[in-house]
Amino acid sequence: MTAAHTVRPTRDQVLKNLVIANRVLAAYEVVDGWGHVSARDPDDADSFIMSAVRAPALVRERDLVAIRVGDGEPPAQIKASVERHIHAGIYRSRKDVTAVVHCHAEALIPFGVAGVPLRPLAHTDAFLIDGCPIWEIRAATYRDTMLVDTAELGDSLAATLAQAPIALMRGHGATIVGASIHEAVYRAIYARHAALVDLAGRSLGTVRYLSTDEARSAADSTVKTFDRTWELWSTQHGATSL
Amino acid sequence: MTAAHTVRPTRDQVLKNLVIANRVLAAYEVVDGWGHVSARDPDDADSFIMSAVRAPALVRERDLVAIRVGDGEPPAQIKASVERHIHAGIYRSRKDVTAVVHCHAEALIPFGVAGVPLRPLAHTDAFLIDGCPIWEIRAATYRDTMLVDTAELGDSLAATLAQAPIALMRGHGATIVGASIHEAVYRAIYARHAALVDLAGRSLGTVRYLSTDEARSAADSTVKTFDRTWELWSTQHGATSL
Amino acid sequence: MTAAHTVRPTRDQVLKNLVIANRVLAAYEVVDGWGHVSARDPDDADSFIMSAVRAPALVRERDLVAIRVGDGEPPAQIKASVERHIHAGIYRSRKDVTAVVHCHAEALIPFGVAGVPLRPLAHTDAFLIDGCPIWEIRAATYRDTMLVDTAELGDSLAATLAQAPIALMRGHGATIVGASIHEAVYRAIYARHAALVDLAGRSLGTVRYLSTDEARSAADSTVKTFDRTWELWSTQHGATSL
Amino acid sequence: MTAAHTVRPTRDQVLKNLVIANRVLAAYEVVDGWGHVSARDPDDADSFIMSAVRAPALVRERDLVAIRVGDGEPPAQIKASVERHIHAGIYRSRKDVTAVVHCHAEALIPFGVAGVPLRPLAHTDAFLIDGCPIWEIRAATYRDTMLVDTAELGDSLAATLAQAPIALMRGHGATIVGASIHEAVYRAIYARHAALVDLAGRSLGTVRYLSTDEARSAADSTVKTFDRTWELWSTQHGATSL
Repeated sequence: MTAAHTVRPTRDQVLKNLVIANRVLAAYEVVDGWGHVSARDPDDADSFIMSAVRAPALVRERDLVAIRVGDGEPPAQIKASVERHIHAGIYRSRKDVTAVVHCHAEALIPFGVAGVPLRPLAHTDAFLIDGCPIWEIRAATYRDTMLVDTAELGDSLAATLAQAPIALMRGHGATIVGASIHEAVYRAIYARHAALVDLAGRSLGTVRYLSTDEARSAADSTVKTFDRTWELWSTQHGATSL
Repeated sequence: MTAAHTVRPTRDQVLKNLVIANRVLAAYEVVDGWGHVSARDPDDADSFIMSAVRAPALVRERDLVAIRVGDGEPPAQIKASVERHIHAGIYRSRKDVTAVVHCHAEALIPFGVAGVPLRPLAHTDAFLIDGCPIWEIRAATYRDTMLVDTAELGDSLAATLAQAPIALMRGHGATIVGASIHEAVYRAIYARHAALVDLAGRSLGTVRYLSTDEARSAADSTVKTFDRTWELWSTQHGATSL
Repeated sequence: MTAAHTVRPTRDQVLKNLVIANRVLAAYEVVDGWGHVSARDPDDADSFIMSAVRAPALVRERDLVAIRVGDGEPPAQIKASVERHIHAGIYRSRKDVTAVVHCHAEALIPFGVAGVPLRPLAHTDAFLIDGCPIWEIRAATYRDTMLVDTAELGDSLAATLAQAPIALMRGHGATIVGASIHEAVYRAIYARHAALVDLAGRSLGTVRYLSTDEARSAADSTVKTFDRTWELWSTQHGATSL
Repeated sequence: MTAAHTVRPTRDQVLKNLVIANRVLAAYEVVDGWGHVSARDPDDADSFIMSAVRAPALVRERDLVAIRVGDGEPPAQIKASVERHIHAGIYRSRKDVTAVVHCHAEALIPFGVAGVPLRPLAHTDAFLIDGCPIWEIRAATYRDTMLVDTAELGDSLAATLAQAPIALMRGHGATIVGASIHEAVYRAIYARHAALVDLAGRSLGTVRYLSTDEARSAADSTVKTFDRTWELWSTQHGATSL
């Protein structure tokens, strides 16, 4: 049996799933007025699709635009988020990545500013075993900016991310990647889960994180249930009424 | 007068109550994309009923399947959760148990990973006086897994649970039992309550837990009100629209 | 001008306001499956009105029953909460009290078990300046119970409450009183507010509580706005659909 | 291209946006039964518009009244909040201010009573770099009051605010200003965000705040996105059904 999320989706399915993903991430407080989720174009690996400038909860299929991986540029006349360079930089360096979430989740920012990487305390968050680097924009630019608004900054973020599933961005938020939209959304929601569990655990005493072996085993088993979480999230929060 | 929850239910009532229980537990954030609640089959004590692979908030009566207590196996051709062995193991060892909840509640995981058993601070949580052991899967298996996916692991969890109402599972979640669906759901919701109250209490100073005598008295009186809490929860969250 | 809440209500208004109060307190998580709010009968000062055994969110006008202040007994054949003795005890000792809320609010229990009385950090919570004693049931009875299920225990709680607006009950919850239903509901909601603000304030450092003079002045001004908060709460949460 | 929030609105637009702002601030728990948002009258710079005495979530366009900046007085016969003097004092001293929010947000009070000014940990909260003074009413009056109920107290608060975007008010709440309704609402919602992020960050360790240069750059970029956040908030929470 092949799970739905492992079948290579058509472009039409990607468009529909991106709209659902925007709404699900908003419902789970991963994104707010900002934040975005993108997917590599299944018909053109040198292009990715994300929404134009619009709050995720309000994104409709007609708000989606294709952007070039090579330089992060949208079609002429199209308004696109300056932070498309986050996505373009990662798609350039990570051939395995098919979807990217960028967010300012309130639960993740404290870890970035305190210099504390997320680590897995529960099997649902096991993917964190593959790393959670913290990107420092000051290491990448002399300009006084917090935004990833150039191809160079996108490359710098991607270099810090390396092969990890998530990078925290000091003073800004986080960027999460996946081999599918299902996986990127899953990881974004459970990165938030890991942060909340860790904060509470620390107030009780010394916590025991998953071992590397435990985490790799658990990560394998959660991947097999992406159809279940996606069915829940899309049923409860994915509807577009606009 | 006999309270409804103390009358032995028919199989049809068990099926309906399992659907309600799934939705109530989701509404109270005891379960999320995973987690499950089962009940012993009133017509066959060697069998228990739980949902197939589906997020609890979406479970319908037609998703329920009967599984053998003896070996945890479902009928041929039926897809069942690998973690059915949690339920089977407990039904084998605890004749008094009629319902089991397994969950990854965000509020409970910190206690398991910090090695801090839940204890009752309020009379609503008095059932915790009968113990809250923490199960360590490493003590039971050499395999690098976090899942209770064999009959042996189910037996190990049941051995740690012993006569307690709840066992925390390090790095995973918790399993809660009851003499009825009403009781298992009650205990799952109030285990979460106990965890949140304890976290806040510790930040204020030294807390006073219920004494054993106080807790036993209070546990007796809360059992008498299961009809009231069930009426509330099933009215507010039990509806199936699918 | 006379504010609506200061006009002596008719019995019919009291019944309607009690139903609204039940639903508002449930919406603000002051009460859950248990808890109750009562009012002195405007036509009979030796009687008070509260719901029979039913979760507050589900209470309807026909669930309300009159109970004698003198001995806490309901009419023959009527099922009433064992904890009616909380209310009866207070109505016996406090002629100024017209309404009583009893609750197990998750936000208040930590203060009772840690032995930390609530104090006002904000002018909305200024009524706390008149005291927040913590009642210890062990000081009142040799029985191993947590419930106020006798007239003697009701008198003991009332003696600890004395002239205060609220008493915390160790291991149990809290009881809040007022000169009107509006005031008792207000104080119950803002006792919870005070608890949450205090918990957060302590984690930042040393906090400055209102002085006695500041609090008395602020308490006088909040009383003048009970019509405003009641309009909000009853509009948003008071509807009965049952 | 000119963003909508930078175009000088008509008086009719101001009235509509004030109603929306009231509901949005209530949905984000910035305001509760009290709190208010005002705007300078675009047709009369010596006058500002705010709701009469009514909970923000219930405010309708017909509840709005014009008040004189000079002395904080409403038209004859009109009932107005005593705290209109907060707004009048600020409009007198800050010609750049077009909108003012006053609130008792539960998330902000702990910082005021602990004497801890808010500082930006994330680029969304960068406006805080321009200061977050804490106003002490005791420094301004000999009366035992917590309310800003005279023109003199309004002037005192405005003097403490000086050129900052927000002032915390010890034992009371906060007042936030902006060059537009969009900006004042944005800052009020993200002051709350900054407070919650800071509380969590402190429990993890030493946090790194934005540098002055980072914050000024980030504040400039968030101003450019006020249309996006306003579209989200007004679509989700701005509807008037009353």
